[in-house]
Amino acid sequence: MLLYVDADYLSPYAMSAFVALREKGLTFELRLLDLKHGEQSSPTYAEISHTQRIPAIVDDDFSLSESSAISEYLDECYIGPKLYPLALLQRAQARSLQAWLRSDLLPIREERSTEVVFLNRSPQPLSAKAQAAANKLFHAAAQLLQPGQLNLFEQWSIADTDLALMINRLVLAGDPVPEYLADYATAQWQRASVQDWVNLPRSIT
Amino acid sequence: MLLYVDADYLSPYAMSAFVALREKGLTFELRLLDLKHGEQSSPTYAEISHTQRIPAIVDDDFSLSESSAISEYLDECYIGPKLYPLALLQRAQARSLQAWLRSDLLPIREERSTEVVFLNRSPQPLSAKAQAAANKLFHAAAQLLQPGQLNLFEQWSIADTDLALMINRLVLAGDPVPEYLADYATAQWQRASVQDWVNLPRSIT
Ligand SMILES: [Ca+2]
Ligand SMILES: [Ca+2]
Ligand SMILES: [Ca+2]
Ligand SMILES: [Ca+2]
Repeated sequence: MLLYVDADYLSPYAMSAFVALREKGLTFELRLLDLKHGEQSSPTYAEISHTQRIPAIVDDDFSLSESSAISEYLDECYIGPKLYPLALLQRAQARSLQAWLRSDLLPIREERSTEVVFLNRSPQPLSAKAQAAANKLFHAAAQLLQPGQLNLFEQWSIADTDLALMINRLVLAGDPVPEYLADYATAQWQRASVQDWVNLPRSIT
Repeated sequence: MLLYVDADYLSPYAMSAFVALREKGLTFELRLLDLKHGEQSSPTYAEISHTQRIPAIVDDDFSLSESSAISEYLDECYIGPKLYPLALLQRAQARSLQAWLRSDLLPIREERSTEVVFLNRSPQPLSAKAQAAANKLFHAAAQLLQPGQLNLFEQWSIADTDLALMINRLVLAGDPVPEYLADYATAQWQRASVQDWVNLPRSIT
């Protein structure tokens, strides 16, 4: 199996696919695309990813883009630890959370880019818009997590990694975050599969 | 079952959830939220949708947001026609397409809002950025559809409705669209479940 990611290892979606593959215990090779030089738009890559985005996997002659679709595919296709909860209602909530984290909270994603997370950048204070998005994130997380809870559901799921990354954009920037949410995100961050991604060699430019 | 949608019936994601419920043959009641007056942020609705977004369903005491998660839930929970392909690789592609259409192509979504689709608005010509997004859409669709093909996979899936809506943003604005893609989107638009949404009473303001 091949996993295409950004050469800077900064994409949160590349991280999600990487963690999914690691958690499934699958062997894969990383392929790096230099997004700054538009390598994702090369004709060769556009054959692999019709949408010209990372991450993408190539599994024999099947290729697939979009990290949430990749996780679902891996869970349906391969044995090993489950990436999604087995219980139907919890699986539905995990999918809902993944879809939401990929399509909302743009002010957080912009003002707390993953450079904050992976390169220890110190950003400006949050704008009012981003603070409102942070409050929305805290509200949603509070519906799903009780203080002291270490996973969203009975067991870890890939939605935990996605949620922890979003919270850690704020935690690692030094923004105020409810303590139990910071604890949750910090604990999730220690997961071996996540640390494998965090510790990939990044050039600080 | 309740389905919460925007009171203007303009959300493409509300439409996707509406079509999914219709295709499953499920009985449901529409609940309208006036987004212009922020009804999605009311404390009552924030209890139903933790993310304060439409669409959301309430099925007995279970509530769920995000249209793609809603479709998956309905397909797993209820009998009736399938919303996703049964074949694993095709199901993966349907999910990938749904995730992509919800998180990319922003210039098309902005310059060809659903007011173009549902209220016959005549917009300005596409900017260079939006034309580039349109070309990307055509490229991706061309990998999935042959001329004359009426569904992405062997049978209709909810990804067809989502893709057809994105293409119809351009078709209904009078923008140049490869003929076979326009034909595909136009045929998808005639589906009874889609027409039920198209024909909901909208006030033209
Ligand atoms: Ca293989
Ligand atoms: Ca392919
Ligand atoms: Ca019921
Ligand atoms: Ca709920």
